[in-house]
Amino acid sequence: MTFSVNALTQESYEIPDNLDDSIAIDNFLSRNKGKKVVVVQGLGFVGAAMSLVCANAITQEYAVIGVDLASENTYWKIKSINDGEFPLIADDPKIVEFFNKAKEKGNLLATYDPMAYKYADVVIVDVNLDVQKKSTEDRVLKDFAVNLNSFKSAIRSISHNCRDDVLVLVETTVPPGTCDKIVKPIIEDGLTMRGLSIDKYRLGHSYERVMPGPEYIDSIREFPRVYSGCTEVSADAVEVFLKTIIDTSVCDLTRLAHTNASEMAKVLENSYRAMNIAFAVEWSRFAESAGVDLYAMVNAIRERKTHANLMYPGIGVGGYCLTKDPLLASWSRKEFFGSNSDLEMSINSVSVNDQMPIFAFDRLIIEFGDLENKKVNFLGVSYRGDVGDTRFTPVETLVKKVRDAGAIVQMHDPFVSFWEELECRVESDINAILNVRSDLVIISAGHSVYKSPKVILKLLEMESTNIYDTIGLLGNEQISLLQEKHKVSVLGRGDL
Amino acid sequence: MTFSVNALTQESYEIPDNLDDSIAIDNFLSRNKGKKVVVVQGLGFVGAAMSLVCANAITQEYAVIGVDLASENTYWKIKSINDGEFPLIADDPKIVEFFNKAKEKGNLLATYDPMAYKYADVVIVDVNLDVQKKSTEDRVLKDFAVNLNSFKSAIRSISHNCRDDVLVLVETTVPPGTCDKIVKPIIEDGLTMRGLSIDKYRLGHSYERVMPGPEYIDSIREFPRVYSGCTEVSADAVEVFLKTIIDTSVCDLTRLAHTNASEMAKVLENSYRAMNIAFAVEWSRFAESAGVDLYAMVNAIRERKTHANLMYPGIGVGGYCLTKDPLLASWSRKEFFGSNSDLEMSINSVSVNDQMPIFAFDRLIIEFGDLENKKVNFLGVSYRGDVGDTRFTPVETLVKKVRDAGAIVQMHDPFVSFWEELECRVESDINAILNVRSDLVIISAGHSVYKSPKVILKLLEMESTNIYDTIGLLGNEQISLLQEKHKVSVLGRGDL
Repeated sequence: MTFSVNALTQESYEIPDNLDDSIAIDNFLSRNKGKKVVVVQGLGFVGAAMSLVCANAITQEYAVIGVDLASENTYWKIKSINDGEFPLIADDPKIVEFFNKAKEKGNLLATYDPMAYKYADVVIVDVNLDVQKKSTEDRVLKDFAVNLNSFKSAIRSISHNCRDDVLVLVETTVPPGTCDKIVKPIIEDGLTMRGLSIDKYRLGHSYERVMPGPEYIDSIREFPRVYSGCTEVSADAVEVFLKTIIDTSVCDLTRLAHTNASEMAKVLENSYRAMNIAFAVEWSRFAESAGVDLYAMVNAIRERKTHANLMYPGIGVGGYCLTKDPLLASWSRKEFFGSNSDLEMSINSVSVNDQMPIFAFDRLIIEFGDLENKKVNFLGVSYRGDVGDTRFTPVETLVKKVRDAGAIVQMHDPFVSFWEELECRVESDINAILNVRSDLVIISAGHSVYKSPKVILKLLEMESTNIYDTIGLLGNEQISLLQEKHKVSVLGRGDL
Repeated sequence: MTFSVNALTQESYEIPDNLDDSIAIDNFLSRNKGKKVVVVQGLGFVGAAMSLVCANAITQEYAVIGVDLASENTYWKIKSINDGEFPLIADDPKIVEFFNKAKEKGNLLATYDPMAYKYADVVIVDVNLDVQKKSTEDRVLKDFAVNLNSFKSAIRSISHNCRDDVLVLVETTVPPGTCDKIVKPIIEDGLTMRGLSIDKYRLGHSYERVMPGPEYIDSIREFPRVYSGCTEVSADAVEVFLKTIIDTSVCDLTRLAHTNASEMAKVLENSYRAMNIAFAVEWSRFAESAGVDLYAMVNAIRERKTHANLMYPGIGVGGYCLTKDPLLASWSRKEFFGSNSDLEMSINSVSVNDQMPIFAFDRLIIEFGDLENKKVNFLGVSYRGDVGDTRFTPVETLVKKVRDAGAIVQMHDPFVSFWEELECRVESDINAILNVRSDLVIISAGHSVYKSPKVILKLLEMESTNIYDTIGLLGNEQISLLQEKHKVSVLGRGDL
């Protein structure tokens, strides 16, 4: 017997041996007669939210089935959705609102049974496609591997079951070329093997720009979207579908001429951002050594419209996209399009960003000295302000380095109670952290609560402690105030 | 006897042996009694325009003296200004307007005599500071050198003559740290040697963002500015002066805390832009091989405000700033601030951009084949649309490669009649180029005339010719039209 543990409640569920969930599916469909069926493959950060968006489509009433594997990591999500609890914590009230509406309407089911694809008018592919990095101890990226096997097997489970007139819409971030060179042949093989026509299915790609956080749902529903189809007919079908779920009165749909193009646009977009962050990494170290304030320089430069997107320095990049998408792009260029060259700037950006927490640690030691037996409190473990998302958070590396240096570490985060990657509890009461003596407080995530007067006052009341702001959260006045009692250091500022 | 040739008129002037120009200076000052004296050091693209801005200051009447060396390259500019001809062609009507006003008022003089500094209330340093690159034949940047000698000697000529209460305002783009570590000691040594006080001079740095072209003057007068001083008093003096020449009702002045900071902001700003261009270089080659249109992708991505500055692909970078400023930054980091590390991303951007014309040539050969004895016409030699500026233009490399491949090359540019760097004539009549048979037309600069219906029609009327658009000037409709008769290829577009 294997079990799947609910990451939110720690409740444990036995995973069924038998993948037959046909009774639940049949019942669900008979309750939703006449509705078109949308199956969302993958119930992660994107797929789960996408299910809610489809179940609350704007111009159409869909029966929505979310499918994921009956595995340790994912089975609990299926169970949770069917038991009436959404499997993600989000501070977007629309998540709860949309989930409750779907419950009322009874048009959302979750299952592990691939037979669900049999009924789908539309299958949306939202499974992950991971990159395996090989890095040095200092997190210099040496090599990486892209393994398409699990992605291919997800597509195969569609092609073995789907109708011959299905619309398959890939949302997963893939190496450019994947729809054309991987998905298309798999779908056609599956249909052919089952003696079905390959003239009627439609295949497209469209990428979301979902942003977990307070506008989680709107970042899908009200955000401009790029899409494409493997044929004009397919592109038309994608457009028709997207218009039923996206609020095109407030955002544009942009069609690109080929799936290669929309797949590339997604990784280009994220590579651009990753590079701009890496650029700030490089210059923040320069600014520190020259004794100047990079934040002030960036503010001055942003006055130019052409430079308004220059990034502030920070502890590094986290999340599921910027940490790997540039690598998918470079991999595609060589594997799918025969180039001998890497996308060097894009790969290098990932490497520089990966190293940032190491630089942050090095500066910590320069500024505050030895950490042996020191009490160090981290404020924030998420990679993004006001969001509880620890996937690939750069704080993880900094915490490990600080621990390895002999410090006793405590962590606070209002949005994370249990840190899955480090398997440890995270304090959610700010007073519990700030009421006890510590040697160093590290501001490591941009949660707005940390710049509230309450927290600044708490910091000010603390007995002598050092403060290390790794993300430029503190304003000039707050820094001056805190400097009256404490040593304060800010990453990217050499002028303190 | 040595001569200096006027680059605009080809007239030749004998360079005087004797640097004593005191009669002219005395006469000028006696005609401008009571006015504060501003001396602009360096009469290049920035200094010449800056002289006009100061001679037409907003809230003050200055007597302005432009100083440059009596050398082959620069003496003619001095002569030209004093003879009543401005030494730059510019399509900004304000250049002529401002120059004429200064002539009327009689408050602008040019000289080679360093005694001018003796009278200056303000000296503005606008001399060049060059970088010597060492690159491979394929323009991969291998190494570079920064030589401060001529810059130092320029500062020395100020310090040997200036008043002890002068304001020295450095506008030259310098390695961060230069004002503090180089200029300051030279000024103080000069004053001390002459038995003068070092307590009264003021020293600051402020960078222009001048853009030769139709808004040349406004890009100085009405553009936000960053400044700093080596002390608070100095910074105040810079602010007071800038407010007399900059229209602060339409743009902001931003004070940074240290000259290191404003010097760094300038090279940071330009490194950021150079990197964003290099990023487009890398991806345009990927897009070509994947058969997709990078322009369409960039347009789709720019819908996101955070990505609105993503650049289009193109033939590369030219001009005096983006091709070297990232190198000044990296040099400073090591030489002035003791780092062992280069600013790798910034240096790499320069190298990638330098290589772009080589990539453009490689694609040309792939698309159009052998060039031996082919007639090739270039439309545009300037590095920027609607501007006649060939300094470090990437077209130079492409022209050389095409010539080396055995082609017979002709060039057109409405804004350049003589190409100094290549020492050759440039056709300014578009008909003269397009009326004769050619094998290949290369669109190599973004002058608006090239997308006018007149030119498109001319191209369409040509006998079979190939067209290579290296800057994405042609729109989709124009491409479709031209494709009816010609083979058309666009850099960064693989989908044609």
